[in-house]
Amino acid sequence: MKSTSNERFERGLNNLNKIDGEAGINVINSLKNISPDLGQYIIEFAFGDIYNRPALDLKSREIATIAALTTLGNATPQLKVHIKAALNIGCTQQEIIEVILQMSVYAGFPAALNGTFAAQEVFEECK
Amino acid sequence: MKSTSNERFERGLNNLNKIDGEAGINVINSLKNISPDLGQYIIEFAFGDIYNRPALDLKSREIATIAALTTLGNATPQLKVHIKAALNIGCTQQEIIEVILQMSVYAGFPAALNGTFAAQEVFEECK
Amino acid sequence: MKSTSNERFERGLNNLNKIDGEAGINVINSLKNISPDLGQYIIEFAFGDIYNRPALDLKSREIATIAALTTLGNATPQLKVHIKAALNIGCTQQEIIEVILQMSVYAGFPAALNGTFAAQEVFEECK
Amino acid sequence: MKSTSNERFERGLNNLNKIDGEAGINVINSLKNISPDLGQYIIEFAFGDIYNRPALDLKSREIATIAALTTLGNATPQLKVHIKAALNIGCTQQEIIEVILQMSVYAGFPAALNGTFAAQEVFEECK
Amino acid sequence: MKSTSNERFERGLNNLNKIDGEAGINVINSLKNISPDLGQYIIEFAFGDIYNRPALDLKSREIATIAALTTLGNATPQLKVHIKAALNIGCTQQEIIEVILQMSVYAGFPAALNGTFAAQEVFEECK
Amino acid sequence: MKSTSNERFERGLNNLNKIDGEAGINVINSLKNISPDLGQYIIEFAFGDIYNRPALDLKSREIATIAALTTLGNATPQLKVHIKAALNIGCTQQEIIEVILQMSVYAGFPAALNGTFAAQEVFEECK
Repeated sequence: MKSTSNERFERGLNNLNKIDGEAGINVINSLKNISPDLGQYIIEFAFGDIYNRPALDLKSREIATIAALTTLGNATPQLKVHIKAALNIGCTQQEIIEVILQMSVYAGFPAALNGTFAAQEVFEECK
Repeated sequence: MKSTSNERFERGLNNLNKIDGEAGINVINSLKNISPDLGQYIIEFAFGDIYNRPALDLKSREIATIAALTTLGNATPQLKVHIKAALNIGCTQQEIIEVILQMSVYAGFPAALNGTFAAQEVFEECK
Repeated sequence: MKSTSNERFERGLNNLNKIDGEAGINVINSLKNISPDLGQYIIEFAFGDIYNRPALDLKSREIATIAALTTLGNATPQLKVHIKAALNIGCTQQEIIEVILQMSVYAGFPAALNGTFAAQEVFEECK
Repeated sequence: MKSTSNERFERGLNNLNKIDGEAGINVINSLKNISPDLGQYIIEFAFGDIYNRPALDLKSREIATIAALTTLGNATPQLKVHIKAALNIGCTQQEIIEVILQMSVYAGFPAALNGTFAAQEVFEECK
Repeated sequence: MKSTSNERFERGLNNLNKIDGEAGINVINSLKNISPDLGQYIIEFAFGDIYNRPALDLKSREIATIAALTTLGNATPQLKVHIKAALNIGCTQQEIIEVILQMSVYAGFPAALNGTFAAQEVFEECK
Repeated sequence: MKSTSNERFERGLNNLNKIDGEAGINVINSLKNISPDLGQYIIEFAFGDIYNRPALDLKSREIATIAALTTLGNATPQLKVHIKAALNIGCTQQEIIEVILQMSVYAGFPAALNGTFAAQEVFEECK
């Protein structure tokens, strides 16, 4: 990691810890042998740049992310990390389920169903 | 339209008016000759059922919808209607741009770029 | 569930039973604790409203649904439910395989391959 | 075009003419200078191989294709060609609108809306 | 299989063997009972027609395919077959990881993450 | 723009100029009033970080990008910018058409058709 990145990396790691907690750190660690730079870019760009911006509160950011990942439909591991993140930063289970339910209108019922089952798995793990 | 739908339809029409305003009514009107029942289902299900639920405030709902439609990438007309809706119900231009910017992380930069240009068109129309 | 929904719900439950059979009921039941309203909307809107419309026979509807779910590519559980549904309402295994094969033209060979393997699992379960 | 392809090509061209009519031939012609082999493969594989198979009637094939292209959401020119094709081989306007309406369940309302407006354009051109 | 297809089929089978090796043959074999014609079309069209064209070297073709399958996000089994193919025809592990990493820009970080984990599984199997 | 970003920004701007030329600069300029930070992140992350990495030559990178954008199907403006970029850095028109043609196998014929027509527009503009 180049020294000029240090500030963004430190800031990103703090945000990752605060938002995603252990689940986020696990993702970065799982990249260590196969593509460590992908992990570095996620920390620097996603968490050091984007999630650090003051223009939107963290709860709104997680609502947007859960909506996006439910809509994509092929990003279940990332959806589960962000459902945990949403709980971490103060969303209720009901609010998360509600965002996913709303996606039935825009992405169809299969996306809403699969998002809901992902949430159920996370809620059960967090019990 | 069947009489048993009346309550959901009335409620949905009120919500559509409040949230999407003229842009939403225009969509329903544009369906009149080709598929009026699609318009009815949008009013009843999307606005009478989903947007009527108390579990999430309207601002959070519009943030989720803008995230979803930016991610889809092929729903520009609907994204523009909901960018107007977001302004209607109190989102700032900066917040809308910020949600779309965040989608670069999850859906890639092309989706974020095209969403941003859709927002620019709406903001210019609303001047 | 609100009383005004009763007629659509009853109609939808009958259609769900007739079309999807046990597999459909299982989906609704699996939502009971996590998002029962999503289950209710699937019954009311998908099966009470849409699948109840006389403008298209059930076989054509299931062909359209199998085409759509194969194309989406990220809705395997729902594709499997509708492959069972297609068999229930009189499609042959050969017709189902043929619709999925045709999707190679529009959605590419990976979508057709994954749809085909989903069908194989369903056919083996139904033996 | 290689001589070994002749039989599939002739068969495909006949099917393309019968199914898509002038709209299909226009697509092939529009490829002449930029990618003629893409046109040849569409004739040979899509229309010479797939649409030639007896396991599914043409009406069912067009229903499946309209469902797939509405679901994709980013293939409007191809959707319009196949809406014309569906009319050519005996689907009614109502059946086409109904297939697209059903896609609201699986691909969401934006996909159904944009498919419906594509159909409206085709129906108006065909008046 | 019709006799007129023989030349394309033979050519395709040779290419499939050379490019995808055992993993490709396994896919074709797994289709034998459920949809053998899908296997035949993959051999004839994908490997007999497309991969046989001289306009692009095999390494560039595999880079394009890995980019496409990472972007799709719902074609993990096919992505793994083509990661193996890329290794077979001379791509390094580093080049494959790099193509997948680049997809973070166009398809978002979840697609890049899931593509990376697919590559890790293949690399471990190939040890 | 924060001073700590300077090095990545300068490097990215140089790469953007070298690879995308005027078309790339136009994209960044078009963001100036609506979302300048999105333009900055594209320069810093896409062109300063990713396209600066030595692990893959620029030609392979553009082949991967054209494959990804053709597959996405909803990113035509970005596809056109990268078709110009591919020409800039030494791809031939035939190679670009060939990559897009190959996408018929993985993303279906509509994606290949729409990618081909995008290429035709770029080639005509560049005459």
